[in-house]
Amino acid sequence: MTHVANDPARFREDMLNGFLDLYSGEIAGVPGGVVRAVSAPGKVAVVVGGGSGHYPAFHGIVGPGFADGAVVGNIFTSPSRGDAVSVCRAASNGAGVLLMAGNYAGDVMNFGQAAAQLTSEGIVTETFFVTDDIASAPLAEKAKRRGIAGDFAVFKIAAAAAEAGLALPDVVEITARANDRTRTLGVGFAGATMPGATSALFSVDPGLMEIGLGIHGEAGLRDVDLTDADTLAGILVDQVLAECPAPESRRIAVVVNGLGSTKYEELFVLWAAIAPRLRDAGYELIRPEVGELVTSLDMSGCSLTLTWLDDDLERYWLAPASTPAFARGTVSLRAEPRRDIPIAQTEPQQDVTGTVTDEQAAAGQLVATLFSSAAAIIAEHEDELGTLDAIAGDGDHGRGMRRGIDAASTAATQAAGRRASAGRVLATAGQAWADNAGGTSGVLWGAALTAAATTLGDHVPNPKSTAAAIAAAVDAIRTLGKAELGDKTMLDALIPFRDRFRDETERGSTFSDAWRAAATVAEEAAAATSSLSPRVGRARPLSERSIGHPDPGATSFALIVNTALPNNS
Amino acid sequence: MTHVANDPARFREDMLNGFLDLYSGEIAGVPGGVVRAVSAPGKVAVVVGGGSGHYPAFHGIVGPGFADGAVVGNIFTSPSRGDAVSVCRAASNGAGVLLMAGNYAGDVMNFGQAAAQLTSEGIVTETFFVTDDIASAPLAEKAKRRGIAGDFAVFKIAAAAAEAGLALPDVVEITARANDRTRTLGVGFAGATMPGATSALFSVDPGLMEIGLGIHGEAGLRDVDLTDADTLAGILVDQVLAECPAPESRRIAVVVNGLGSTKYEELFVLWAAIAPRLRDAGYELIRPEVGELVTSLDMSGCSLTLTWLDDDLERYWLAPASTPAFARGTVSLRAEPRRDIPIAQTEPQQDVTGTVTDEQAAAGQLVATLFSSAAAIIAEHEDELGTLDAIAGDGDHGRGMRRGIDAASTAATQAAGRRASAGRVLATAGQAWADNAGGTSGVLWGAALTAAATTLGDHVPNPKSTAAAIAAAVDAIRTLGKAELGDKTMLDALIPFRDRFRDETERGSTFSDAWRAAATVAEEAAAATSSLSPRVGRARPLSERSIGHPDPGATSFALIVNTALPNNS
Repeated sequence: MTHVANDPARFREDMLNGFLDLYSGEIAGVPGGVVRAVSAPGKVAVVVGGGSGHYPAFHGIVGPGFADGAVVGNIFTSPSRGDAVSVCRAASNGAGVLLMAGNYAGDVMNFGQAAAQLTSEGIVTETFFVTDDIASAPLAEKAKRRGIAGDFAVFKIAAAAAEAGLALPDVVEITARANDRTRTLGVGFAGATMPGATSALFSVDPGLMEIGLGIHGEAGLRDVDLTDADTLAGILVDQVLAECPAPESRRIAVVVNGLGSTKYEELFVLWAAIAPRLRDAGYELIRPEVGELVTSLDMSGCSLTLTWLDDDLERYWLAPASTPAFARGTVSLRAEPRRDIPIAQTEPQQDVTGTVTDEQAAAGQLVATLFSSAAAIIAEHEDELGTLDAIAGDGDHGRGMRRGIDAASTAATQAAGRRASAGRVLATAGQAWADNAGGTSGVLWGAALTAAATTLGDHVPNPKSTAAAIAAAVDAIRTLGKAELGDKTMLDALIPFRDRFRDETERGSTFSDAWRAAATVAEEAAAATSSLSPRVGRARPLSERSIGHPDPGATSFALIVNTALPNNS
Repeated sequence: MTHVANDPARFREDMLNGFLDLYSGEIAGVPGGVVRAVSAPGKVAVVVGGGSGHYPAFHGIVGPGFADGAVVGNIFTSPSRGDAVSVCRAASNGAGVLLMAGNYAGDVMNFGQAAAQLTSEGIVTETFFVTDDIASAPLAEKAKRRGIAGDFAVFKIAAAAAEAGLALPDVVEITARANDRTRTLGVGFAGATMPGATSALFSVDPGLMEIGLGIHGEAGLRDVDLTDADTLAGILVDQVLAECPAPESRRIAVVVNGLGSTKYEELFVLWAAIAPRLRDAGYELIRPEVGELVTSLDMSGCSLTLTWLDDDLERYWLAPASTPAFARGTVSLRAEPRRDIPIAQTEPQQDVTGTVTDEQAAAGQLVATLFSSAAAIIAEHEDELGTLDAIAGDGDHGRGMRRGIDAASTAATQAAGRRASAGRVLATAGQAWADNAGGTSGVLWGAALTAAATTLGDHVPNPKSTAAAIAAAVDAIRTLGKAELGDKTMLDALIPFRDRFRDETERGSTFSDAWRAAATVAEEAAAATSSLSPRVGRARPLSERSIGHPDPGATSFALIVNTALPNNS
């Protein structure tokens, strides 16, 4: 359990404040994360990131020989696009940026959008998402696998390639090669507890362990009897070796990772059983790392990662590094104090003060009011949404929604106060949501609101244009989230909402009646997601446990549209 | 909870095997612990140690700039005298040895005996025991305080002084100065679980935390409401600063230590609250260390350690070090590969094959048989003794007694097979017990049996000589353990046993009747320890919880003498 915290909502900020105080000579804080205090001009910047709660991943491995910066999200929550943009700008050395994370939907979307924005600004940025977890999808669908402790090995190799002076395309090639040859399998004994929560995200029955766990408190894929260390070593070694991606390689990098409460003594016991098995299989073990490298708060569990090396990968795996949490050898490199850390510029303020009629301004005011109501209902249901999410995910949906909708509501109110039109209020709210929420829902809501806003423009919304705006929002989410109806996502409530609203308006219902009818359908649809089969096409596979429970994204959508009821027009 | 283990009885061995495999280029294994693989000729050897379960303390901090060797006991159990002798012999560089531990009765006795033996062999060895825990005794009785996370700071400074080339007396002076100026206070949120156990050594009610916890799963001294991080920081800072030992010093080394399940994220949150408080009090914080340095398996909790520096202490605190678990700066020192690691010699085999009569040999055989019976009863009650010990101590009494008596019984049987006299069987058993058990009970039983053996000599025991032997055993324990009747130790059963046996024999009872009567008294006395007030004169203070529970040492003594009943003569 997490015991040391102030307000859990500012856990990330408190944690970063302490970290930055401690490593003030080596690490500098920027909005959204941290960068090296000493820059390395002319080298590709490797920026790693994701939610926090994984220390030393990811801000503990920033420093010479390793990452140039880390984007630091809230606990187990993807940082926002704005966070990623800010850190990459600060970390950039003028030779391009490689922005990396484990393969999770939220990180993929937020980092992807950040890379596009940075590249458009002249900072060429590539993304890469690690897919080492063999339990999360079959080999034929490796691109759907999530990244767990293999993050450490792939990040290490990528960073050393950049430190060696390779150009961005070559760093990306090395990174892809390392990822192709990296495999991890984990087991869990007990779940993690989020700051402020009183129970773990999942529990394991005594006498059992879960094989195939994630690093965000996700439960494992199947329960088996708890074994002794020798048997556990056999399970891990056999299953990871069975996927050998490079039969010609007899030299492997090895990471035995502890998730938090599984201590070094236990990891050494496990290593004593793993090492001879790997050697008996004919492998030479190259600089194995046994310790807590990618944790999950106080979760109990461990994993085995193997990277089948070639000459390039071995050189980069062995290269020196010097960071707050990880050191290898002695780093000697050309570097200079980062005299002037470029703090992320404020996003260009959108112009919301065009000449608008009173009717346009009133529509904008109505939209802002609806956001206030929606923010209140989400605040009220924050814990419930978190609990729903914890069944199949990491339990962060409630907090993420709240952070997003609060930012959106504040921005909407300010925009409406400046007499913005409905479309501009929506656009401002969408941007604030995406830049502040992080996570998967944040980037999706941001994209949906932005698409709707573009459709509406400055016109006073009418039923027909609103139906078109809702349809545009659906399309934006489908494109970005790569999900469809039936996948147990918010689309399962949003698509029926879209269809009913369209049908009602086509048959001449008032705006208000159409919305009410559509909102009711959305509520029924959200509840019905509990009977759906697991969604597909997601980086994070869905546990069977989630069947029978409503999807949190669909639930929060239904809550919002049932609360944010326009009363007239 | 500890999940990764094979046979819990060989957890230490499995753990060390994995550790040594991993760090084979830097660390070498020797019986009883580890030493640097590369020696530093001519420097004082600093050997640290204690029970295991504290990684990185203590074998994780062996290497250039830090310790020369570590004596590694079983989980939370003092290593034996034999372990300490073996490691110090291997670590010695020809300039004397400083053998250090936290201030616990078992370590003090075992290491003290080891130092005496080493010095008599020509390896001048000093001991030092750290006393940083302000909660464990009042300042006026600082020598009774136990060592917790302050071990790290004092060991670091001592080791750097040795690395700098100081002679042994000067290293001891620096060490004493560092200890005098070091203070720690800890809090616990949840107890540790020993390998093989299914419940923690103590538990904390939800919503509470314990102030003044130990690092062996000992419960804290008082419960208070769980607070937020800011309030917790205030409690720790205020109480540690209140004992400022050096008002002229405004420069302090700081250690914020996590005990295992309290993670880095939490420690950073705490640091963000601690650092400004210390600075506001006028201190400059010199190279603070925030992390897991002296752990207690998966225990949840943390502590604050301050060392008030002077110029010498600051230089040694800041000096570079390079070890498996801790690195600072770049170490450059004269060193050479340790080509020939001196493996500890076998203890000189005691001569047990003198010319003895059949009667003398039969008496020896009887003693060996009694040890077999006693070993069986201890095996049967191992868990019960561990549970009793867990109430006030670290729950290791059952396992330690079993390890000791099994070794004693085996040695006794072998000696009797060589026709040894009763005294020589006892002496052999006592030596085997002390060298194999570790812990407090091991060294005390070893000393008691050795004293009794010396009194008996090769004579066939009679009631009078047996009474004298028992009296000698009592005296040995009183001298070594610095305890008296009523302190809640094994003496509370042993002294009534001695008195009743003497009285019975003086009034002419048979040996067998006297023993039975004394054994019954011992059993009653052991049970009566449950109503005694806390023992005094022990390095480890007794929790009030132990009142109302029988003392485990007295209980195991009573079990043994009630089982090992001589049937005649």
